[in-house]
Amino acid sequence: MYPVIVAFDPGRTVTLGVVLESVKSLCGLVGGFKLGLPFLALYGPRGFSEVRRSCGEGLVIADFKLADIGHVMRLVVEAVSGYIDAVIAHSFVGVEGALRDLKEFLDSVGLKLILVYNMSHSGALETMAPCRERLRRVISSIKPWGVVAPATRPEEVKEARNLFPWAKILSPGVGAQGAKPGTALCAGADYEIIGRMLAYSRDPKAALESIAPGLKRCLGDSDA
Amino acid sequence: MYPVIVAFDPGRTVTLGVVLESVKSLCGLVGGFKLGLPFLALYGPRGFSEVRRSCGEGLVIADFKLADIGHVMRLVVEAVSGYIDAVIAHSFVGVEGALRDLKEFLDSVGLKLILVYNMSHSGALETMAPCRERLRRVISSIKPWGVVAPATRPEEVKEARNLFPWAKILSPGVGAQGAKPGTALCAGADYEIIGRMLAYSRDPKAALESIAPGLKRCLGDSDA
Repeated sequence: MYPVIVAFDPGRTVTLGVVLESVKSLCGLVGGFKLGLPFLALYGPRGFSEVRRSCGEGLVIADFKLADIGHVMRLVVEAVSGYIDAVIAHSFVGVEGALRDLKEFLDSVGLKLILVYNMSHSGALETMAPCRERLRRVISSIKPWGVVAPATRPEEVKEARNLFPWAKILSPGVGAQGAKPGTALCAGADYEIIGRMLAYSRDPKAALESIAPGLKRCLGDSDA
Repeated sequence: MYPVIVAFDPGRTVTLGVVLESVKSLCGLVGGFKLGLPFLALYGPRGFSEVRRSCGEGLVIADFKLADIGHVMRLVVEAVSGYIDAVIAHSFVGVEGALRDLKEFLDSVGLKLILVYNMSHSGALETMAPCRERLRRVISSIKPWGVVAPATRPEEVKEARNLFPWAKILSPGVGAQGAKPGTALCAGADYEIIGRMLAYSRDPKAALESIAPGLKRCLGDSDA
């Protein structure tokens, strides 16, 4: 099993069938699958159910980048809660009236919370990075299962690894966004999130194998 | 027409039929309808299409609180772009690689962008409020059609009114979250966003009329 989460943010020309073939082809070989808002908009809760049915192993993560009041975030998750293992939300909405409510709800139904610490695109440097002390406090207070830090800036992965020792670190930005496979794992991430490079490949398994040397360079023999 | 946007964030027990009856009952009496992620999760793009068909007047706003890279935000909007007038995103994600891409896309398809400046819950005071100088710069750079500032803190509505003179100011937090109808309009908002207090009322029109005196107290005779 490679410490990779495969991200699906499909456009309108991608059918659910294509996604499910990719999921089946990678099932057992990767740590899980991340389904974003475009996936929800196109396929609805049924799409989540089908992905869950297509692979009994690994994590199914709803990457809704939730950033609303607690009441609304909870309602969104309820629509798919039977089919997923974890949900991604933004730390920048804060604790009271937002993430505390979400965390309590997720705990009550046995789902994991993953909070975004920083993002992979350059715009995040203008806003989220300068406010990171505030975001840190939110994450330390909520103690989520996982934290997102960008593979495009490995120093922030290292920082997240040190700041949140209890958390799994998940790193997007590998592939289409520029970071090379293995970069975040070498910096201490638990999972690299890889989308376009793998998800809709004609042969996802072969695409995964082609980046395996990069992924393995900082892993012990037992990890992959 | 009251300067009110009616927000629908339905739970699983609310049918699309109930929402559409409410929309029809309020059509022409309010400025528009705001459909959140719970609405998308439950009813899909078809729900947006049905709301659009049920009322030819006023705005249909997709309140997805988008907070992702530009590529992903665009894909989400594309799923509903034929049925809406405007989209809400977070200023927190910054310009490059995120909101610039979204704005360009929305301009190209004739949709309005609304950016969140601050939110109505208390957790936003720990994170978004201290970072507001950064968020201001993002909003001033992107120049969206609308800006969200919370009715629960009218001084922030006034501030947004002064900082972003070109923008419509939309204020959530009225009703279930504690602000009284009219509070944000008195502080300079163009629209108050009202959800649970109106949306699922047995008689939404009567519920609207019952708060009309509050809404009207700072409006000139021509506004309502």
